[in-house]
Amino acid sequence: MSGIRHVNPPEPMQPGVVYIIGAGPGDPDLITVRGLRLLQQAEVALYDRLVPRALLMETPQDCERIYVGKAAGVAAMPQEEIINLMIHHARANRRVVRLKGGDPYVFGRGGEEALALRAARVPFVVVPGVSSAVAVPALVGIPLTHQHLARGFAVVTGHTRHETYPASQRPQDDDPLGHLDLEALAAIDTVVVLMGVRRLAALSEGLQQAGRSPDTPVAIIENGATPKERLVCGRLADIAAKAAQASVQPPAVIVIGNVVALQPALQPTLKQLHSPTTSF
Amino acid sequence: MSGIRHVNPPEPMQPGVVYIIGAGPGDPDLITVRGLRLLQQAEVALYDRLVPRALLMETPQDCERIYVGKAAGVAAMPQEEIINLMIHHARANRRVVRLKGGDPYVFGRGGEEALALRAARVPFVVVPGVSSAVAVPALVGIPLTHQHLARGFAVVTGHTRHETYPASQRPQDDDPLGHLDLEALAAIDTVVVLMGVRRLAALSEGLQQAGRSPDTPVAIIENGATPKERLVCGRLADIAAKAAQASVQPPAVIVIGNVVALQPALQPTLKQLHSPTTSF
Repeated sequence: MSGIRHVNPPEPMQPGVVYIIGAGPGDPDLITVRGLRLLQQAEVALYDRLVPRALLMETPQDCERIYVGKAAGVAAMPQEEIINLMIHHARANRRVVRLKGGDPYVFGRGGEEALALRAARVPFVVVPGVSSAVAVPALVGIPLTHQHLARGFAVVTGHTRHETYPASQRPQDDDPLGHLDLEALAAIDTVVVLMGVRRLAALSEGLQQAGRSPDTPVAIIENGATPKERLVCGRLADIAAKAAQASVQPPAVIVIGNVVALQPALQPTLKQLHSPTTSF
Repeated sequence: MSGIRHVNPPEPMQPGVVYIIGAGPGDPDLITVRGLRLLQQAEVALYDRLVPRALLMETPQDCERIYVGKAAGVAAMPQEEIINLMIHHARANRRVVRLKGGDPYVFGRGGEEALALRAARVPFVVVPGVSSAVAVPALVGIPLTHQHLARGFAVVTGHTRHETYPASQRPQDDDPLGHLDLEALAAIDTVVVLMGVRRLAALSEGLQQAGRSPDTPVAIIENGATPKERLVCGRLADIAAKAAQASVQPPAVIVIGNVVALQPALQPTLKQLHSPTTSF
């Protein structure tokens, strides 16, 4: 097969503009056509931890690639510094890509960065990506909605304590899920939790206390949409123990709800991932 | 710029397999690289109403393109017939694409179709797409999550009455939102409603009765991610009147929550859509 034909005429990247691009859930081929074409014109690329390596290799050879990611629990580049870097390179009239895992506006701090660019009068463009919240379950065979089983879904993060509160307002350690309305979540058919592995025991207990059945099926997908993908299934009552036993580590997507019971029937019948090599 | 380089080696499409592919939210360039490459190998493509025309033009010239979409309120091809067509063409050992707007597993009936394929022992592959629920708001400047404003979001449909209930269980007309738990939704920071235009009055009233402030900002994006995109903003208290006045029509994405207030600051500073022409 030859190269890809053009769906739209290629979009020339503007110098002096920051393109905030969603890299998708892990499989590099799940970036959008638009995102990839822009990436291939970047002069500077600021990228996060969960961005597939293969996508970085798609930037031009002389592109300056700057890692600005955080590892869970480890202090990394402060958000302010990331913003300053974007502004600096845009003001130097370079073609700047800010590459984020999943979608930039789903727990990606994309809005925060875009507001900072706006305040600095730096033009920006947001290119949506495939969110891990939807795609990681789908790739193992879990649809977030399904006739008669799930008429809607919610997406939350288990990790907002340090992320979304200023220091003075942070909930205490004895209420790690203080940012979540567990009563409301217990009534939503499908609940997806991102960055929730370390809060799984509190979360599953809290949802049961809020009225969700202990028999509710739960799936945890570790390293979703990558060759290292691993699936651990259980019920609200036992999933924390099962995850501990399997030593599940971040990054992982947690899905809670009856749709999880479809997984054995909907699991891939063909190998879906191919090896992440590039032509670069 | 030359054509796209390969992120992964191209994935050869298997004959006799149905590829259920998300076309993304409307802009043809927001399909995934993987989805586009598969589409370009299709021998048969069954497509829905909201699939961008430009993507159909990416199928090979001799590809059989079959419209199986429904218009809102109009009886179209029954689901059973769509499933029979997929099975028929797969059993004829052809390369079959089932192309759906947005993501196949977000109110796309993808799960239903995949289960039917499974029952018929026809292998299938699901390729996630960018969901309109996330991308359509993002493209006008509304992030579904944002520090201090939205710690999570829910996605529901206003249109499940005829879609998710068998005839005998359909809620009566005086309870058009009987499928939704409005108490729970009222407590979720950001609520996205797909296919909700015709239920907007009941929905906004119901959320207020469930305790949501009448001042909550609401945005409706009609024809999102297309050149015909139109944005109508208001508050829970007045959005139904404003939508009626503006004569908003489906398809539209409704976003309810304080993140909508970010839209004036985050609206695109560059034109984001380019004309949907193809090289075909």
